[in-house]
Amino acid sequence: MADEQPASPVRVAVVQFGPQVGLANRERNAEHALRLAGAAVADGATLVVLPELATTGFAFTDRAEAYAHAEPVPDGPTVTAWADFARRHGVHLAGGLVERDGVRLYNTAVLVGPDGYVGRYRKAHLWDREKLWFTPGDVGFPVFDTTIGRIGMLICWDIWFPEVPRLLAAQGADIICAPSNWTWTPPPLFDQSGLCMAAYLTMGAAHVNNVFIAAANRTGAERDTRYLGCSLITGTNGWPLGRVAGPDEETVLTADIDLAAARSAPIWSRHNDLVRDRRTDLYDSMLGYRLGQAYPR
Amino acid sequence: MADEQPASPVRVAVVQFGPQVGLANRERNAEHALRLAGAAVADGATLVVLPELATTGFAFTDRAEAYAHAEPVPDGPTVTAWADFARRHGVHLAGGLVERDGVRLYNTAVLVGPDGYVGRYRKAHLWDREKLWFTPGDVGFPVFDTTIGRIGMLICWDIWFPEVPRLLAAQGADIICAPSNWTWTPPPLFDQSGLCMAAYLTMGAAHVNNVFIAAANRTGAERDTRYLGCSLITGTNGWPLGRVAGPDEETVLTADIDLAAARSAPIWSRHNDLVRDRRTDLYDSMLGYRLGQAYPR
Repeated sequence: MADEQPASPVRVAVVQFGPQVGLANRERNAEHALRLAGAAVADGATLVVLPELATTGFAFTDRAEAYAHAEPVPDGPTVTAWADFARRHGVHLAGGLVERDGVRLYNTAVLVGPDGYVGRYRKAHLWDREKLWFTPGDVGFPVFDTTIGRIGMLICWDIWFPEVPRLLAAQGADIICAPSNWTWTPPPLFDQSGLCMAAYLTMGAAHVNNVFIAAANRTGAERDTRYLGCSLITGTNGWPLGRVAGPDEETVLTADIDLAAARSAPIWSRHNDLVRDRRTDLYDSMLGYRLGQAYPR
Repeated sequence: MADEQPASPVRVAVVQFGPQVGLANRERNAEHALRLAGAAVADGATLVVLPELATTGFAFTDRAEAYAHAEPVPDGPTVTAWADFARRHGVHLAGGLVERDGVRLYNTAVLVGPDGYVGRYRKAHLWDREKLWFTPGDVGFPVFDTTIGRIGMLICWDIWFPEVPRLLAAQGADIICAPSNWTWTPPPLFDQSGLCMAAYLTMGAAHVNNVFIAAANRTGAERDTRYLGCSLITGTNGWPLGRVAGPDEETVLTADIDLAAARSAPIWSRHNDLVRDRRTDLYDSMLGYRLGQAYPR
């Protein structure tokens, strides 16, 4: 079978850097994120992914500090600046910020494009002390149609829940943008090869769902929290396209992909199709077929 | 926190070898499997896992040949021999065989213990040409209570479906025994470090479900099929306990584990619990919350 012309060629870039929490750092974080995104675009990127909470940092001390870092979506300064950037360059960009909606705070990722604001995802699975100020996401797992393809988002700890990439892929996502703040936790989540478990989970989720994943993690340390780096872009077969970022480097990784690859069954065997092979008849709300009944012995 | 005395200590062994398809080889396969299992038990193993289709091989040519290799469960010769072995040594053993039930064939894993036959699992997700003779599993994903703990089983391609380990863990499995015949498929499923994607999927499934997984794969080549080896035993944190087997070696890997570890939330953060953190309110039969509805923009 001859390779076809790419139907949906995209140069995707994940931006890895270390924002710092604290209102005094906010403008610098925001400028720095867009400077790196600008470098990616100058290098030809058409889809840029920034980390989770890219303009504010992560390690808030208390609720009051989280409120002070929050802004409305889509009318706040961060989304406005990102939408301007996307319009000016004719690209798409996904990244994370603290959203305030009434008295509620959300850990939110937004997607912007050449026509401005596209949509938001609110982190469903909150990590550690986030639970003390954020509201768990209440917008499901949306997939957005764009001019370059269908884009879903997840945030950080969400990747620990295989349901999330599954649901995004089931809705036809071609690529999942994953702004993250993967944190170091005991026991160490690194192996000898320098990969972290989060990277393996990302690879596995891409592989079993035949979907691209672009995970932009942050680096550095912030108060009592350390971050893992390990940003990566996977192919639909799960393997990293290019290298996986180290734990401490500020860097931009790029990959040239054809989003159309997510719309074909992987040709692993004549008789298998990852989607058709699912036994949804047995999964039953993930609680289990015949759960609580006797199994035939 | 001081370590407690192990509540459910188990020495688990995964047996990796290369059975050969064909009726002429069947007795030799069966004897060889039990010889290796016996060596594991002599080394102190109390739970032994054999590969998928351990006595018959995998690469049947057609339906007729698959029928010829089949036997009833639990009254056929393989389960009888395995139950005798388990009784004699006072151990548990899981392994795969071709089950015939009326005119139906199943790719089945059975569990036997000191009191004989415990139960069966019929492979739900069939790989490639298996679909041409096996009936897809129709007993759900059972978890069996035993004197050493709760044991679930999955077979090979099942691990590509995150629903399977999820459902087993949700029913309280302490360990998942995974008899497998992971096959080489293009594109190569190996990475530079020698690990295969199946091993990463196993590690990830153990990690996100806080469950032990003992995966016994086969080696070698058989007709037009090659196998990956890569047998491994993971801890509840997902990392391999000891080494991952190579692609070609006949070997027995063992690990000393405390099945009780699967009954405690991993202490990754003060506010997280893998099970409580699940957003089953959003998963809705894995089809998606608000699927097909408009998302708030």
